[in-house]
Amino acid sequence: MSGYPYPQLDRPQRVWTKKAEANEDVKVNEWIRPVEQSTDLNDVDVTILGVPLSKSSISTSAASENPEAMRAAWKSFQTYNLDEDVDLASLQAVDLGDVKQHVTDIHQTHENITQAMEAMRVHHPHTLPVSLGGDHSITAMLVKGWKNAHPDERIGILQLDTHFDLRDPNELGPANGTPIRFLIENGVIEGKHVHNIGLHGFFNAKDLKIYADQHGINYITMKNTRKAGIGSVIQEALETLSKQVDTIYLTVDMDVLDIVHGPAAPAATPGGMYTEELFEAVQLAGEHQRVKAMDIVCLDPRKDVGEQTVKAAVHTMLSFLTGYSKRKEA
Amino acid sequence: MSGYPYPQLDRPQRVWTKKAEANEDVKVNEWIRPVEQSTDLNDVDVTILGVPLSKSSISTSAASENPEAMRAAWKSFQTYNLDEDVDLASLQAVDLGDVKQHVTDIHQTHENITQAMEAMRVHHPHTLPVSLGGDHSITAMLVKGWKNAHPDERIGILQLDTHFDLRDPNELGPANGTPIRFLIENGVIEGKHVHNIGLHGFFNAKDLKIYADQHGINYITMKNTRKAGIGSVIQEALETLSKQVDTIYLTVDMDVLDIVHGPAAPAATPGGMYTEELFEAVQLAGEHQRVKAMDIVCLDPRKDVGEQTVKAAVHTMLSFLTGYSKRKEA
Amino acid sequence: MSGYPYPQLDRPQRVWTKKAEANEDVKVNEWIRPVEQSTDLNDVDVTILGVPLSKSSISTSAASENPEAMRAAWKSFQTYNLDEDVDLASLQAVDLGDVKQHVTDIHQTHENITQAMEAMRVHHPHTLPVSLGGDHSITAMLVKGWKNAHPDERIGILQLDTHFDLRDPNELGPANGTPIRFLIENGVIEGKHVHNIGLHGFFNAKDLKIYADQHGINYITMKNTRKAGIGSVIQEALETLSKQVDTIYLTVDMDVLDIVHGPAAPAATPGGMYTEELFEAVQLAGEHQRVKAMDIVCLDPRKDVGEQTVKAAVHTMLSFLTGYSKRKEA
Amino acid sequence: MSGYPYPQLDRPQRVWTKKAEANEDVKVNEWIRPVEQSTDLNDVDVTILGVPLSKSSISTSAASENPEAMRAAWKSFQTYNLDEDVDLASLQAVDLGDVKQHVTDIHQTHENITQAMEAMRVHHPHTLPVSLGGDHSITAMLVKGWKNAHPDERIGILQLDTHFDLRDPNELGPANGTPIRFLIENGVIEGKHVHNIGLHGFFNAKDLKIYADQHGINYITMKNTRKAGIGSVIQEALETLSKQVDTIYLTVDMDVLDIVHGPAAPAATPGGMYTEELFEAVQLAGEHQRVKAMDIVCLDPRKDVGEQTVKAAVHTMLSFLTGYSKRKEA
Amino acid sequence: MSGYPYPQLDRPQRVWTKKAEANEDVKVNEWIRPVEQSTDLNDVDVTILGVPLSKSSISTSAASENPEAMRAAWKSFQTYNLDEDVDLASLQAVDLGDVKQHVTDIHQTHENITQAMEAMRVHHPHTLPVSLGGDHSITAMLVKGWKNAHPDERIGILQLDTHFDLRDPNELGPANGTPIRFLIENGVIEGKHVHNIGLHGFFNAKDLKIYADQHGINYITMKNTRKAGIGSVIQEALETLSKQVDTIYLTVDMDVLDIVHGPAAPAATPGGMYTEELFEAVQLAGEHQRVKAMDIVCLDPRKDVGEQTVKAAVHTMLSFLTGYSKRKEA
Amino acid sequence: MSGYPYPQLDRPQRVWTKKAEANEDVKVNEWIRPVEQSTDLNDVDVTILGVPLSKSSISTSAASENPEAMRAAWKSFQTYNLDEDVDLASLQAVDLGDVKQHVTDIHQTHENITQAMEAMRVHHPHTLPVSLGGDHSITAMLVKGWKNAHPDERIGILQLDTHFDLRDPNELGPANGTPIRFLIENGVIEGKHVHNIGLHGFFNAKDLKIYADQHGINYITMKNTRKAGIGSVIQEALETLSKQVDTIYLTVDMDVLDIVHGPAAPAATPGGMYTEELFEAVQLAGEHQRVKAMDIVCLDPRKDVGEQTVKAAVHTMLSFLTGYSKRKEA
Repeated sequence: MSGYPYPQLDRPQRVWTKKAEANEDVKVNEWIRPVEQSTDLNDVDVTILGVPLSKSSISTSAASENPEAMRAAWKSFQTYNLDEDVDLASLQAVDLGDVKQHVTDIHQTHENITQAMEAMRVHHPHTLPVSLGGDHSITAMLVKGWKNAHPDERIGILQLDTHFDLRDPNELGPANGTPIRFLIENGVIEGKHVHNIGLHGFFNAKDLKIYADQHGINYITMKNTRKAGIGSVIQEALETLSKQVDTIYLTVDMDVLDIVHGPAAPAATPGGMYTEELFEAVQLAGEHQRVKAMDIVCLDPRKDVGEQTVKAAVHTMLSFLTGYSKRKEA
Repeated sequence: MSGYPYPQLDRPQRVWTKKAEANEDVKVNEWIRPVEQSTDLNDVDVTILGVPLSKSSISTSAASENPEAMRAAWKSFQTYNLDEDVDLASLQAVDLGDVKQHVTDIHQTHENITQAMEAMRVHHPHTLPVSLGGDHSITAMLVKGWKNAHPDERIGILQLDTHFDLRDPNELGPANGTPIRFLIENGVIEGKHVHNIGLHGFFNAKDLKIYADQHGINYITMKNTRKAGIGSVIQEALETLSKQVDTIYLTVDMDVLDIVHGPAAPAATPGGMYTEELFEAVQLAGEHQRVKAMDIVCLDPRKDVGEQTVKAAVHTMLSFLTGYSKRKEA
Repeated sequence: MSGYPYPQLDRPQRVWTKKAEANEDVKVNEWIRPVEQSTDLNDVDVTILGVPLSKSSISTSAASENPEAMRAAWKSFQTYNLDEDVDLASLQAVDLGDVKQHVTDIHQTHENITQAMEAMRVHHPHTLPVSLGGDHSITAMLVKGWKNAHPDERIGILQLDTHFDLRDPNELGPANGTPIRFLIENGVIEGKHVHNIGLHGFFNAKDLKIYADQHGINYITMKNTRKAGIGSVIQEALETLSKQVDTIYLTVDMDVLDIVHGPAAPAATPGGMYTEELFEAVQLAGEHQRVKAMDIVCLDPRKDVGEQTVKAAVHTMLSFLTGYSKRKEA
Repeated sequence: MSGYPYPQLDRPQRVWTKKAEANEDVKVNEWIRPVEQSTDLNDVDVTILGVPLSKSSISTSAASENPEAMRAAWKSFQTYNLDEDVDLASLQAVDLGDVKQHVTDIHQTHENITQAMEAMRVHHPHTLPVSLGGDHSITAMLVKGWKNAHPDERIGILQLDTHFDLRDPNELGPANGTPIRFLIENGVIEGKHVHNIGLHGFFNAKDLKIYADQHGINYITMKNTRKAGIGSVIQEALETLSKQVDTIYLTVDMDVLDIVHGPAAPAATPGGMYTEELFEAVQLAGEHQRVKAMDIVCLDPRKDVGEQTVKAAVHTMLSFLTGYSKRKEA
Repeated sequence: MSGYPYPQLDRPQRVWTKKAEANEDVKVNEWIRPVEQSTDLNDVDVTILGVPLSKSSISTSAASENPEAMRAAWKSFQTYNLDEDVDLASLQAVDLGDVKQHVTDIHQTHENITQAMEAMRVHHPHTLPVSLGGDHSITAMLVKGWKNAHPDERIGILQLDTHFDLRDPNELGPANGTPIRFLIENGVIEGKHVHNIGLHGFFNAKDLKIYADQHGINYITMKNTRKAGIGSVIQEALETLSKQVDTIYLTVDMDVLDIVHGPAAPAATPGGMYTEELFEAVQLAGEHQRVKAMDIVCLDPRKDVGEQTVKAAVHTMLSFLTGYSKRKEA
Repeated sequence: MSGYPYPQLDRPQRVWTKKAEANEDVKVNEWIRPVEQSTDLNDVDVTILGVPLSKSSISTSAASENPEAMRAAWKSFQTYNLDEDVDLASLQAVDLGDVKQHVTDIHQTHENITQAMEAMRVHHPHTLPVSLGGDHSITAMLVKGWKNAHPDERIGILQLDTHFDLRDPNELGPANGTPIRFLIENGVIEGKHVHNIGLHGFFNAKDLKIYADQHGINYITMKNTRKAGIGSVIQEALETLSKQVDTIYLTVDMDVLDIVHGPAAPAATPGGMYTEELFEAVQLAGEHQRVKAMDIVCLDPRKDVGEQTVKAAVHTMLSFLTGYSKRKEA
């Protein structure tokens, strides 16, 4: 596999077998193929990257189990999206596997994540990376990897989150409450290029709001998002960002969901976002030319109720790719 | 019980005892009486039929446990509906028991279901049958039984469902993904008399959409249903159908619900229907003169969370009967 | 603690330790302090009272476990409310502990509840009491205690509930289905000063509706509440009451929530209130000058799913206090 | 039903229907018949009494749900005991229903329990009463009822329990930690006629051990019981008691079980009794002529894991009746 | 794959990937390889066959999910058995996949099972088949397939089970309560060549015991098994059988386990077998020359508690193969 | 608190309040007091240390939640052990709190653990440390800390474990599969001074057994332990060790338990140790003069079933302290 320069990755533990016969009825688990020696990444549209790290979480989390949980749930979804008459099967999608994890050295794992994104951007810059966390600390490393590969690009962040994620990495290290501040303080992004949508009262300390204001971060609470309509809020953020940056990175912290709609997101809150709102948001992001990568983080499948959140996360990925497919066709 | 020609049925396993004293505070479990030798079905308004079959499911399902689960949950409901100032206790409702199940011969069980509906229509054509599944394969058998009893009637289907249920019975037999196609291909109904409301992206293969279009099936996704308002979507479907058919059969696949609102519907999806929308839909159907039977299917109570879905199903039945009660009074 | 005249109370079983260092990032568990010998209740704005009684429930309930469950969940909340830019830490809040419970004499426990409220009103009339039940029978005792302390006040009730709570205390004793009727029949309140919002069909017997109408109780079902908008319904009730009474007592029966949003409220129903609606309602109540006490009842944490309901209850308390904080600042 | 003098009882809520055809394959739910107007209790061998009271528990308990849970689980058991080649179907067994419960007056409920036992002993002294609790407070009332009916009898207690149940009823009222002391202090039994088997370290305060010693109560811990063998320990207790008393009352507190074998017994402990040991113990008791009544208490089915404990409780009842059947045949 | 004559089979849905590097630390999921085109079954010692059928169950069961559940759990086990210093990795083991299932025609599926065993015996008679059910009806089909392939062999059954499985297939069809009777009445085996170990009181109707006695079936209850010691009971059965038959087929119904040790076996009972006893039993069987096939049935993983039963089933398979490995080495 | 030199520790998050009145009926939560400024550690017999680290686990684990879970469960236990007539209340026990955790630097946390033990041994060498993990990596750090404080002591390990814990720290870092090898390779202990009891087949790679043999580690599988009797196996290990070392460190990996007896020990196995055996083992260790410290590790309370494992862990600690109490009295 000359085209496969990813020493930072492990293969997925289990691989879906493909049905022998050709079949109109393609499920997502049959559509997304594991990377093989023979895979030519130049023909690939979408690369799925598992990032099973949650040792960097402030609270104990099994978000590390999420990539495997999402892969297992692919089987419940068709590639065809009746709502939009779009068939994702027209995209080539590959599962690259998981970023290698060191058992006791989180710093090393963070390095692996950065290098995985960087390597992919250097060698196969045409694919759309979709990263499945892991906790939110991985976003800092993935965006840093992108920046390393494209040092001249200005990067904007479209963040769907209950939290600011502006806690101090000097105190905690690059933990899951810190990625946006980490990126700002390391000069990867500017505060004014962050748009955070879905924040919630009682889940952000006041000093983080002060930090956000001082650094020009754009934000809107869930309550106000719902009043304005999720669609128009997202559209406005995308339009503003597209005038200021080269690349928009979409990061979806599953705890933006209402605790009832995302029981496996450990910090989801009552009064949060509903899945129908989330799907509309990410599909709009997927349609936008400047949105070039996305991740889904902070989903601990051990807390799930009947796969509700894992299925919501897969649907989120597929809704985003529906937008991407429409973008490509447009 | 000369008026009880149902060799296809077993009595319910457990029977609610009635409180000795007369009481204003009647619960649904005291209102719906088991059929006895002395029951004169000519005085009955509503007949409840359990259809505990889920061996015909494509995926493993315990929807066979649903009739008993719903009966157990009757105790949590009053007959009086404060929202509409309607008391269901003014209707006579009888629990006929369950269609006999063969342990290893699904075909025989399907025959029993068809004959149970047929017998009821022949001998007591004045009652409103409410069937509690079981998986969706039973709808094909129940509607076929109705057609056998009323061969000259044109029958329309009002379907609340995440899926088309148009998979090929020639391949799977009359399984739970096939009932609508089974009815069309057996000449029981015409495609154009099917109105399917609540379909969802990523849960229907493209070839089923093509089949639906080829056969003139009417459908609208949940996303578009919500935009238009469930009430107006249902009203329009009822009005259209009432000009074309003699009888409208309402079938509620519980997986039309959002996965959060119907955790026990194995194929419920994120972004689906909320219970308040479902209740509005079925009450409107209940009010309509042409709606003459209904069923509730694909609820596996072993997957439930705190009886949420089972209670939603009972409420669905009661909301439909509230409409029926208003129809009778009007 | 000369200022601590509460022989009816026990200390909370477990007490949160306060972090040594001052910290901008104050969590609710660090903000609400346990009462100590040195606490001067004259400086306190809010008093939290646990009322761990559910032996008085008609159905078996572990709502007695709720005060401890809510205390444990305080840790998940910041005092800062980003939605309103209000920091609850500017209020002094004290946890008084729990009303003493007799193992086998419910009447004695009810007496203790009444006396606890009465004592607090006599000795520290300036604090806002927030009582955490327990089942709904406690509301009768708390309001009675208030009336004992302020015999000349007219008291109104703003009730968020799926039920009327008008069952007959002569039959059941002062159980959890009876508090409003108990208060009316004991001359503590008048029926016309009760505003009940969120009632649901199929969960109230017809004779209770007749009683409500006979006594001039104001009520609106959840279905109609949603049509009108929860905000305007609450505002109207508050305005009407404020012209008629001196004190408005807010009682939140958690079963007003949809069964999906409040799985631990044993009598919550499908089609009920969403948490976002509940938070809006109680914040508006908190802002109103005449609202002088509140309680949260009928939450059985043993039925909870991932702390969803307990967190909703804590959020309800905090949303109410957000309104109270705005009232004080205004 | 002239022979049915039980105003203290309610019928069971739900009644098992009997299969039409005669059948060798009789399940326990078909064997135990509900009491009807036509039942002649003079032909009955065993009377089952539900006692759904757990408001008298020191810790919150839903043991009140146990009688219904055990009735529902009868369906999983045959009447035929292959181990002993005994068919319980040769005994006539009747389910009398449940002792009436007052919602808020525990004392009244306790009176009802006492009177139910007393009435049964007066009118139908030939049946073997098997009472299904409820918490352990009911044992005091049941034994007191027996004593009222047979004031001249000396009564011994064979208790299988993790606890002494010697806490002070003067402090707690007749709660679930107090029944043995209640009976001693009310002169119903003597301490020396109590044999408590299965006590556990760390679950009994030292002062209770002192009380036990002072009153001559016989006891042996689980650890020592296992060393000696449960069979010989039980045999010895029965032999000793049979020389001293007229009637031996067997009370089984399900928390005698290991926490793994009785997950629904709230106070079960690690290192406790295994079900096979419990079944051996109660069968031996059932065989003994002087054992004339038994109860099963402190099983909260809401804490159960897959019906493990409820099934163990039903098996306990059936093992006891196997012994009783052998006694009758002998 | 010229050597792969199994049109009745589907590949496993998901396949474990093998770590790139050679490694002493081999897990069972890496040891058992999926069958590939290149697999030469002549070099294979053990063939694993999934039989995901539970539509033939009398009670609703999801035992059809067991083959996938066991495959997923392989990852938790090493091939090295420290207890015996045996490394299973010295055996070649192949996962053949699953017998094809018809959605609505149970008879067809039963045929497929019979043919799968028959084909394997004809083409690769040297491998040891280990079949993972599915419900107990599959045993009848598997043994029938063996008999078809080896019509002159006398086959004995070593059955570990709570039940006789002698219910009448004429009444139920070849359902999961009937396999032993089915085999006797179809002339595949003789009753006297059946040894059933672990039967339990209250779970077998008396008429089945009579049938067993009439047909000379050998059986011993769990209670008596434990008294005699599981090892000696098994040894005696094996010795007796080895004098009478050519092939001993071992069938393990997981409901032989105590309900606490096998929570996912729907019919497991309190007072049943412990896993340590089961492992000893099957290892002894594995060591015996005449034991030539085995199956594990009636495990519904949806009822499991933390994978306890699924892990017990995998361990059962591995303990059996430990015996087989010792046999081969001996 | 001049006598409190522990900058590495945080106070427990929540502290049990002590009942006002003196009471014979002391529960463990009232007996173990939190450390305060005024605590004189010179009067203390037992120091409890929380070590909430599980980021060092090979598999994702929430064992970090165990110290708080065990503290919460103290409330269910009396200090009086009826089995031995020993009252632990005669010992002074203090809860020191938790070793400080760094969010992203596991090495720093490991340093804190080592220093915490070292500091305690230097300043208060007379107390018996009982450490509550956390995963098994902490044992390496705790024993290293002991060695740092007592460089001349020979230390032996009495290990109750399903695993060798001899994986290579050079590969994984000091993770939870490596502590014994870490201690050997860092010269803290010698292999021949390790006695590992309870090892299980299929859960240890062969190369680890070879390593164990090469380094003279003493071990015995659970199967053989049960044959010999846990008591005699432990006694023999203690006697052997006491001739060779100065200090015996007892480490209890909860996965030594049978998966049914320790559902919250992620690697517990079917066929493992029962709690009664574990309690006997640790009590014997507690009685031995040379046993000077113990820890309990690898308990993930999020996997627990009804607190079964957490209660077993508390009982393990109390059984050990019962032995210690007997040793002191002897």
